[in-house]
Order: sequence, then C-alpha cells, then structure tokens
Amino acid sequence: MSVTAPLGFRAAGIAAGIKSGDARDLALVVNDGPSRAAAGVFTANRVKAAPVLWSQQVLSGGRLRAVVLNSGGANACTGPEGFQDTHATAEKVAEVLDDSAGEIAVCSTGLIGERLPMEALLTGVQTAAGQLSRDGGLAAADAIRTTDTVSKISFKRADGYMVGGMAKGAGMLAPALATMLCVITTDADLTSEELDTVLRAATARTFDRLDSDGCMSTNDTVLLLASGAAGVRPDLAEFGQKVQEVCADLARQLLVDAEGASKAIAVEVVGAASEDDAVEVGRTVARSNLLKCAIHGEDPNWGRVLAAVGTTKAVFEPDRVNVAINGIWICRDGAVGDDRSKVDMRPRDVTITIDLSAGRHSATIHTTDLTAEYVHENSAYSS
Amino acid sequence: MSVTAPLGFRAAGIAAGIKSGDARDLALVVNDGPSRAAAGVFTANRVKAAPVLWSQQVLSGGRLRAVVLNSGGANACTGPEGFQDTHATAEKVAEVLDDSAGEIAVCSTGLIGERLPMEALLTGVQTAAGQLSRDGGLAAADAIRTTDTVSKISFKRADGYMVGGMAKGAGMLAPALATMLCVITTDADLTSEELDTVLRAATARTFDRLDSDGCMSTNDTVLLLASGAAGVRPDLAEFGQKVQEVCADLARQLLVDAEGASKAIAVEVVGAASEDDAVEVGRTVARSNLLKCAIHGEDPNWGRVLAAVGTTKAVFEPDRVNVAINGIWICRDGAVGDDRSKVDMRPRDVTITIDLSAGRHSATIHTTDLTAEYVHENSAYSS
Repeated sequence: MSVTAPLGFRAAGIAAGIKSGDARDLALVVNDGPSRAAAGVFTANRVKAAPVLWSQQVLSGGRLRAVVLNSGGANACTGPEGFQDTHATAEKVAEVLDDSAGEIAVCSTGLIGERLPMEALLTGVQTAAGQLSRDGGLAAADAIRTTDTVSKISFKRADGYMVGGMAKGAGMLAPALATMLCVITTDADLTSEELDTVLRAATARTFDRLDSDGCMSTNDTVLLLASGAAGVRPDLAEFGQKVQEVCADLARQLLVDAEGASKAIAVEVVGAASEDDAVEVGRTVARSNLLKCAIHGEDPNWGRVLAAVGTTKAVFEPDRVNVAINGIWICRDGAVGDDRSKVDMRPRDVTITIDLSAGRHSATIHTTDLTAEYVHENSAYSS
Repeated sequence: MSVTAPLGFRAAGIAAGIKSGDARDLALVVNDGPSRAAAGVFTANRVKAAPVLWSQQVLSGGRLRAVVLNSGGANACTGPEGFQDTHATAEKVAEVLDDSAGEIAVCSTGLIGERLPMEALLTGVQTAAGQLSRDGGLAAADAIRTTDTVSKISFKRADGYMVGGMAKGAGMLAPALATMLCVITTDADLTSEELDTVLRAATARTFDRLDSDGCMSTNDTVLLLASGAAGVRPDLAEFGQKVQEVCADLARQLLVDAEGASKAIAVEVVGAASEDDAVEVGRTVARSNLLKCAIHGEDPNWGRVLAAVGTTKAVFEPDRVNVAINGIWICRDGAVGDDRSKVDMRPRDVTITIDLSAGRHSATIHTTDLTAEYVHENSAYSS
C-alpha cells in the first residue's frame, strides 16, 4: 500500500546502479493533484546534507510535485559540488515530469562524504519516470533501504480519505542511528500550513521519541504530501490522529529493525513536573550505554537507571524516585524495592517505568539494547 | 610508591570479605600530619552514593585524618540505612585511630543498590588499622580495584616535597564509565583552600576530559591530602603542575584500562571560539557510538565526526571545518580532503583533530573505541 494507497499518487522504485549490485536504489513519488500542498521536517543537525538544504528551500513554498529519493550515497559533506548534484537531480525530475524543479524534493541516504554517481542517477530518474504507477509504492519503499532488513510501509483509512507512508532507517528524526527518510501521502485536501502543524505534532511524539543510539544524521527528512484527490476536507484533529498513527507505526518498524538490537526498550517516565522533563529523563536513560548493555544481558539493573536520571536537570528528589522494570517496582524511594528476581527479562519488549514523584506529566522514549552485533555492523564497514 | 610516597602517610589494603573470594577489598590511608589540610572533588551526578554525601560534608571542614575505601559495593541508592552504614564505617575508623569521625572520608565502589556487609567491613577496618605502614600504598591501590585489570599509582618529586596518588576505575570524574576513586597525597604544607583550588584546576583538565562511555557514576571522588611533613611551603604554580601531572598520569592509566577497549582515542579540538566550545565538541564526538565503532573497525570515518560536531552549539560553519585522523586531513572545508587510504589506523593510539576555524582555543578529550568486549563486560554481569 505505502505512499500510493491514497488517490493521486504514483511511484516507482528501480535499480539505477548507484549501489553496487542490482538492488533497487532510486525511488520516485509523484503527486498528480489536484492539490500539491506539502510540509517537511528535517534533521536538527547543523551539518546538513545537500538534499536537506535543497528540500528545506523547496518546502518553504509549501508545494511538492514529486520526491526523488536515493540510497547508496548521502550526498552529505560534499561541498558546493554536492549541492549542484542535488540541484541537477531535481532539474532532471522536473524535465521528465515537464514541471518545475522548485517543487521537487530530494532525499539521499548512504555514506557521508562521497559524491553521487550522477550519470547513473540521472539515467535512473528517466527510467523511474517511465515506471511510475499506482502500484509503485512497494517498489519505492524497497528502493530506499540501506541497512534496513525489511521495507517499512504503513496505511490508515479515515472517513473518506486515506493516509499512506513509507520509511527507511533504524533510528529517529533527531538524533538518529542512521538516516531516517519518510514520505507520507494523503488524498485529503489540506493547506500546507495545516500539513505543517499536523506533521510537526506527529513527528514530535513519534520519530522524535525514538533514540536507538543517540546519534543524529545529516540527512533525516519527513515529508507529508496531500493530493486532495479524494475531494475531502478532513476534520483536522482526526487527520492529525491518522498521520500520527502512520508515524507511530513506521517508527515502531524502524525500532524493531534497529541495527543489531535484540531488545526493544520503552523508557516510560511518569510523575514528571513537565513533559520536557519527562522527555529529558527518558532520553538520558535511553542513551546510557551501561544500561543498554545490562538490558541486553537481561539484568534488571535499576542502579544504572538512577545513575542516568541523576545526570539530568529534571525536577526530582533522589530519595523519591521509583523504578519498575517489566512491571516490578525494584526501586522504591531511590533505594531497593521489590525482589529483582521477580522481573522477567526474557521478552523482547522491555518496559522501564520511572516515577519521578514530581508532577503529573509523562513521556515514553523508545530505544534498543546495545549488542555485540551493533558494534559489528557499525565497525565492519563504512556506512 | 602510591599514596605513601610522601612523608606523613601510612596505608593498608586487606581482604575483608566484602567481595566474594579472597581479593583485597578494603583500603585505609592515614595522614599522620602535622597538617591535615585536605580538599575533595565529587561526582556531579545528582544521585549521590551515601559515602559521597558523607565525605562532602566532612570536607567542608577542610581537614582529613584518614580515608577508608572499599570495593565490592557502592553503597549507592541504599536509603537512610546506607548513610548510617557509611557513618558507622567512619566511626569505626575514628575509634581505631582514636580520632574524630568528622575528619574521616569514606569511598565505596561496586554494585549500586545493595547494602554493604557491615560486619565484615567493620572487622576489616580493625584489621587494616593493624597493618598500616609506610609501605602500604601498593596494597591500598590493589584493594580498590573492581574491573580494573591493574592497580593505578603515580608519583612525582618536586623541590623538597612529593606528590603521590592511587586511583581505580575506567572512566572519568563526571561522567564516568565506572566509579572513579582517587586519593592524592603530598608532604608539602598547604591550606585546604590552596588544595581545593589546585585540585579543581587539575581534575578539570585531566579526569574531566576522559569520557570513556558518557556514563556518570554515583560515587566518583578525588581527594587531595597534605601532611606538611616535609616542612615545605611550595610554590603554588609548581605544586599545581605536579598535582596535574599525577592526575594526568592516573587518568591515562584509567583510559588504557577502560573496559573492553582496543583503541585509545584523543579527540583534539583546535580553532575553537572558546575553551568551552572545544570541550563541548570534543565530548560530543567522543560520545558518538557510531564513530567509536568505526574507529574500532579501523575505518577513518570522518563523516561520523562531522555528524557529531553538527549536534553541538559550538561556534562553527559546516563548510569551514577540517578533520584529520592520525595526521591526515581527510576532511577539508566540510568536504572530502586528502585520500583516506593514507590514514594508518593500526596503532592503538588514534588522534582525531577537529579544526573548527572559529578561533584560537583548544581542548582534548580522551575516549576509547566501542567494542563487542565492552558490551560483553557490561552485559554479562551486574556492576
């Protein structure tokens, strides 16, 4: 289903020869309208790849005719030449669609610091344009994979319209393990301002709360395109909910496919004085390598949780913090609680609940364990 | 040599049965004066172990008769009972030395969230007191080891006085991989205010610039004791230099012994607008799991360096940053520089130089690579 589930969208995914081998590496998603309203959210990294700089500029107009995405190269840290490559890619898409490059977004993912093979890429754009179809969503989702072991797609039906999406990556919007790219489409009719509001709210509660390894990519991009082809002006709250569901679904798929992970860890912070405090505590705990190793070893090491909480600026008193792992409150009032042998650490899903006893706010950050496989995947080759 | 190299100090290290097996686990360091001036620096973690809370209070008086240290248990997150255990330990030392508990510092290291076996510990204090000697420095350094594979000791001679030290741990003061404990002694004559100034300056440039895994312990403690037994009022600048040399020497020993590391990485930031910027950039790069994996794999992946730099608030322009690895400038002006195949990644020591082109300040942060052995050591058992 993916990005072509909603009316008004065609897509293609082909092997352009950007990657070695014959794997798909180029995707094209085209919005046939009648509306072209669009919004985007980009990496917070100050070192931004050329396609991010380009697409941010394009999105300032609030309209997108198409998105071209490639795996096999991030086109980041490639200087002015890299920006020209992105520009040329958008121009080529505009040419084959007989449209304007100013409404073409570009997304790239792969190794930083290498120029893209532009001849292969531009020929690929021509080929992809010839294969655009209403069934192309799956091939497009396949073409943006890098270390992803599976394609990530999602789809939700609402009252008279649909929301579809595809994503790649094994991390989060910011920070990110690896680049995260995501394209979401809808055939509902909305303004670009509405799309922007909805997209920011949805990503803030989904992709932004994944933190697989605390690293932030130079290329992260999430786009939302509305064709209006269903002819429906949706209820904005309902639409926001659907977009958030698609984002949450894709985020979950990214997490499960995170490089080398054997556990999916939810760090659930409750009793916080503010949502910001809850997010800060959740993120800090989710980034503790020591804790992530302990969870990998199926050790309910709440001492490492408290040591991480103690490095934050959140409102809490050390002797009022409670911690549960998989529902067993093994730390009460900052000290030993229930018997840790009662904690069943065998399931793949592990929930760490931290009660700060400081207020009524909460947030959940999702992460993974730290494994020898993660080290292997990230040391054995460049990515 | 260790802490008993300077005149006026005796020490002992014994097996009290706090750890299982017959390894040494209790150390006692006694200052026989004539001066008792002392200073301490403690973890910045808000979740502080009972011995840290106790010793901070003791040090507010600026005098120390003795330090008692145990491995085999951190006495952190142990509630009011844990604090009473620390208090009882200090009282016991005071009793055997016929002195005041208010001038006895306590340090503990080991698993968080478990009470110490107080009967064994108190009996151990009695035994250790009976074995105090001018040769006891090595045994004391041995007794504070946890996952340390070797004892860490240092010693510098100055004009008419000496500075000695011992440490345990495989990390830094704040944050820290594992608890870092360090006791430094001198037979020079200084006030506690002078010691405090010197110690803060020395630790800020040494232990504080180690960042093996970004985690911060609940127990980190560095103490500096002056006996005045040499009868020398030292030049303060020279004394500060000697203390910093001892700290740097011990910090280097900690880094080399970091859990599961195969590379010692120096992240050298130059051209920064301020020293704070240099430290922030160095620390952020030193904490990138992706980069640490790449270095482990002997991959001079400068893209991961730039991606980490981009997450900081330091003053820099992405297209003016240069990066060298082991002296080869593989990134110039934020893009591809010299041929990366020229970088020799085989040595254990790896230097990453980041030129922000934004000013004249610099700082170096020391870290290690991320290895499967690190994961194994920190997942296979509680610590």
